[in-house]
Amino acid sequence: MAERNRAETEAAVARANTAFYQAFTEGSYDAMADLWARSAPVACAHPGSPVITGRDAVLESWRAILREPPPAAMRCDRVLVQLLGDAAVVTCYEGNGDRPAHLAATNVFVLEGASWRMVHHHAGPLSRAIPKPSPPSTLN
Amino acid sequence: MAERNRAETEAAVARANTAFYQAFTEGSYDAMADLWARSAPVACAHPGSPVITGRDAVLESWRAILREPPPAAMRCDRVLVQLLGDAAVVTCYEGNGDRPAHLAATNVFVLEGASWRMVHHHAGPLSRAIPKPSPPSTLN
Repeated sequence: MAERNRAETEAAVARANTAFYQAFTEGSYDAMADLWARSAPVACAHPGSPVITGRDAVLESWRAILREPPPAAMRCDRVLVQLLGDAAVVTCYEGNGDRPAHLAATNVFVLEGASWRMVHHHAGPLSRAIPKPSPPSTLN
Repeated sequence: MAERNRAETEAAVARANTAFYQAFTEGSYDAMADLWARSAPVACAHPGSPVITGRDAVLESWRAILREPPPAAMRCDRVLVQLLGDAAVVTCYEGNGDRPAHLAATNVFVLEGASWRMVHHHAGPLSRAIPKPSPPSTLN
């Protein structure tokens, strides 16, 4: 894959990852449902919980979670995209608002048609919370 | 993918996943190094820890871990394979010996040549340990 194509593809995957945390923050079930794959098999492991499999069961778990959206915006810090052809693994740290991130997440996406859709989400507790990255200085 | 091909491919991925826990159990750095992808980007999140990226750093973390192999065989219970073309996501629960599983794991593999090789491992603590599945009855 040419470098430019790779960068564009990674950016598209990162946008899908951002959309996931946006849907979470907004408590939007419709946006969350739109994000998960239609054809590919899906699975989800919420923090500390057993693995849920199948689109219906995974979305049902999100319906319950999204009834009470998080009190502050969900962050995904230090996003890293591993491209694997028409699949991609994203790792990031999850936190709320300005608090240190307390979860490590693995999010897997596949290309369905022209859209990167989620097939797997696994968030697990970090032993030590990771502070929110400082915004880049605007003062040089 | 025809059903038979799918079953064979899922079995090949499951064997790679088993080989990972075998290498872990045996404290075999060479077997572990052989298992991780050469060409595809790799990442690893050990339980509670930040994400490690790149083959060298990931294998260095395993070298340290494998110096003290687990006191009892590592189990991977309730293995589930999600096939995504030339990539596959495996979920399972990790435990030692006969003790209940205390970690949920996401393991991602890609097909490199004829071998399924690991590109991602993420193990996170379970809030409630999951008992070892009973062996199927040998009566009947």
